[in-house]
Amino acid sequence: MKRREFFSKSMLASIGFGVVNPTLGLSKPPVRTFRKQAKNIIFLVSDGMSTGTLTMADLLLRQKEGKKSRWMSYYLGGFAKRALMDTASSNSLVTDSAAAGSSWGGGMRVPNGSLNVGPKGELPVPILQKFKHAGKSVGCVTSVQITHATPASFCVNEKSRSAMPEIAAKYLELEFDLMMGGGAEVFDASMRKDKRDLFGAFQKAGFSVVRDRDQMMDLNGDKPVLGVYSEGGMPYAIDRENDPELKKKVPSLAEMSRKAIEILSQNPKGFAMQIEGGKVDWAAHANDAPALLYDQLDFDEAVGIALDFAAKDGETLVIMTTDHGNANPGLFAADKFSRLYTTSHSNEWVLSQLSPDNTAGQVADFIETYQGLQLKKEEIDALMKSYRGTSTDGLYGSTKVPNHLYAQLQYAHTGIGWAGTGHSADHVELAMYGPGSENLPAYIENYKLHNFMLDAAHVPALTYAG
Amino acid sequence: MKRREFFSKSMLASIGFGVVNPTLGLSKPPVRTFRKQAKNIIFLVSDGMSTGTLTMADLLLRQKEGKKSRWMSYYLGGFAKRALMDTASSNSLVTDSAAAGSSWGGGMRVPNGSLNVGPKGELPVPILQKFKHAGKSVGCVTSVQITHATPASFCVNEKSRSAMPEIAAKYLELEFDLMMGGGAEVFDASMRKDKRDLFGAFQKAGFSVVRDRDQMMDLNGDKPVLGVYSEGGMPYAIDRENDPELKKKVPSLAEMSRKAIEILSQNPKGFAMQIEGGKVDWAAHANDAPALLYDQLDFDEAVGIALDFAAKDGETLVIMTTDHGNANPGLFAADKFSRLYTTSHSNEWVLSQLSPDNTAGQVADFIETYQGLQLKKEEIDALMKSYRGTSTDGLYGSTKVPNHLYAQLQYAHTGIGWAGTGHSADHVELAMYGPGSENLPAYIENYKLHNFMLDAAHVPALTYAG
Repeated sequence: MKRREFFSKSMLASIGFGVVNPTLGLSKPPVRTFRKQAKNIIFLVSDGMSTGTLTMADLLLRQKEGKKSRWMSYYLGGFAKRALMDTASSNSLVTDSAAAGSSWGGGMRVPNGSLNVGPKGELPVPILQKFKHAGKSVGCVTSVQITHATPASFCVNEKSRSAMPEIAAKYLELEFDLMMGGGAEVFDASMRKDKRDLFGAFQKAGFSVVRDRDQMMDLNGDKPVLGVYSEGGMPYAIDRENDPELKKKVPSLAEMSRKAIEILSQNPKGFAMQIEGGKVDWAAHANDAPALLYDQLDFDEAVGIALDFAAKDGETLVIMTTDHGNANPGLFAADKFSRLYTTSHSNEWVLSQLSPDNTAGQVADFIETYQGLQLKKEEIDALMKSYRGTSTDGLYGSTKVPNHLYAQLQYAHTGIGWAGTGHSADHVELAMYGPGSENLPAYIENYKLHNFMLDAAHVPALTYAG
Repeated sequence: MKRREFFSKSMLASIGFGVVNPTLGLSKPPVRTFRKQAKNIIFLVSDGMSTGTLTMADLLLRQKEGKKSRWMSYYLGGFAKRALMDTASSNSLVTDSAAAGSSWGGGMRVPNGSLNVGPKGELPVPILQKFKHAGKSVGCVTSVQITHATPASFCVNEKSRSAMPEIAAKYLELEFDLMMGGGAEVFDASMRKDKRDLFGAFQKAGFSVVRDRDQMMDLNGDKPVLGVYSEGGMPYAIDRENDPELKKKVPSLAEMSRKAIEILSQNPKGFAMQIEGGKVDWAAHANDAPALLYDQLDFDEAVGIALDFAAKDGETLVIMTTDHGNANPGLFAADKFSRLYTTSHSNEWVLSQLSPDNTAGQVADFIETYQGLQLKKEEIDALMKSYRGTSTDGLYGSTKVPNHLYAQLQYAHTGIGWAGTGHSADHVELAMYGPGSENLPAYIENYKLHNFMLDAAHVPALTYAG
């Protein structure tokens, strides 16, 4: 099959939405003329950001510090370009991050769990490969594993998002200019099943491999960069911010983003990158309000860094959005919202410090100290019962703490409620700034962003860069 | 105090947001030039419409009937004007409908519960009085009591929204051109505490007073209209649609809207009106998914009627929005969504038909027949226990059914979850079509819509029409 033919067929597959829904994706894209070229593209995704997440983070900053979020400040300028985006995958109205990212990364809807492998096995070329082929510097920054679904969706074709060790090996071959986030376990020989030393391999291939904040700050862009600052996902912003040791060791999403833009923008041919607030999604899954809102604010700082760069540069298209809603939280009792202003740690952190051996008094003191909440005796009892009831050894891994029960108990104290613990089918917020943004329609199907970005950058849509 | 002075002070009061938040409302409105005059204004509000409500109604229509909602179809045209709107009241981040409506109706934030009475007793002139004074025909259409907070907020000053009998009497004095909805109890002598015959008084004042669908359909606009089709709120759209008798007797929101536009548009000087999908909010409070989504679709038909009129007319500004989020529902399991395609009745209706005397088998059959859901034995038991546990006489009024428990049980069957049972602080969706819409900024504080509408219609902002 000829290259052009292959792509036409991929594109055809992308406009249907199964048999049940002939309408999704069938609308004609508006005729666009991208006159002024976007030399650079910064694509920011707050993973799993429901409307309530964007709103509450903005309100938190206004109430706590008397300033608006950068995202809303951009809107308040009056001239912002916004769209509502649908979020479906090829096999569900409720997408996962792999399929949602692939819609942008590959330009077609794929089944949940897949990274740029279509329902019929199509293998659309991931967008950062196309930009790399066009001579631009490319890279990804995230607060979760750098091999996680959302960054990977801009980089590779992989049938299953869970193949993170394989994705790490693919990154080595791609030789992208900058990859930063968590996920040491998929690069470290001692933690990989195949015992392959990927950190060593990246170094041998000419990369700067950095493992902490200081090393990152020293980067000057003379070599491509692999920055891995944690096993698994990176710490929640609120936990990092309030732990001096962690703050020294691990960069924030905003710090990584600033450094990444500094390095990638050295290429005279421009750059294209993705910045993901990945732990916003994790916090939403866990119904962890402090984690959610402060990670959204860390992401918002990255939005500000991107907008400031673009305003100065004049040739950068900034896109800010999310891949899907998650848990649809809301603030339902305004008088209790102030409890979030002084909270110093995530629910995840608080719950992982507790054990069945603690007395009710100890638990009450601990929660009041770190979160400013005064739980009632019966609430403490319910919480501790869940530890004793389900634990065999009195110790929980961080993913095994009773997040959802605690979120339910917190409702009476913070006024924040949750509609679920997973992704929602909601249409989501998207905004753009810079050259190309003038062509954004009021509503856009997620997969159409792929060609939109290529068109904005004047990069041929069908380039094969594999 | 001179009139102009009074208004300047009212306006000043409206830009502060208590002491805690100096930033809300302090941004300068964008400089606007409203060149082409909007002769008519149709303001559509789906009360309590969270992002998930708008999304799920659109997805329901796409999946069930293969067509998009009119609201989303407008966006898909590509050129739609949209804004994100804040929803705060003068004393809370979480508004009620009275304060939210008053922000539009009076141009200032007021305390929750108040209708155009400011925090310092300010009495801004309600917008439909201003439009009436400018020679336009004015009116309101709603699916709840016509004296309910949202329509009332465009019409009267009243310290408490609960003073519905007094509001009805004020309507008589205002002599607006068309008021339609529910709420017979506040007009009927036998149901008013003061035994005043308001229906008779309206007739004596020269109104056509209509009480059912046929009478409404016969209206030709030769007289002002009071249409009251139910006690309390009108039936949910899904219950009306599937009950031939009710369908014959009671008009839908879309039917009322069509007739109202037909009548109001006879004025050569133009018209201004509000159309409220008021029971969307009631359904959200009750976490009643079938009621919510089909009432949103009834509202969407009204949106379509307004857009079609405006497209033909060319001099009409259409505004579609909501006053606040409510319950922040979401679709979390796409494979279960199809259960909503065949549901024929609201939860409210189903639950109000059941009694503690029913056997588990009867309840299971009933729910399967009317909602297509196959509840498990233990779910039926939990539901019936809630009847027996809280009932003393085995009979429930329609507001006393176990809505929230049933919504929790339904989650496993429909995939729809709820974050709360009340209003949320979410920023909300707003869109405009027609002359003036070109001036809509990307983000708008709710109270700024007041002057926006006056400016669009070239009606002096400070006219006193009392």
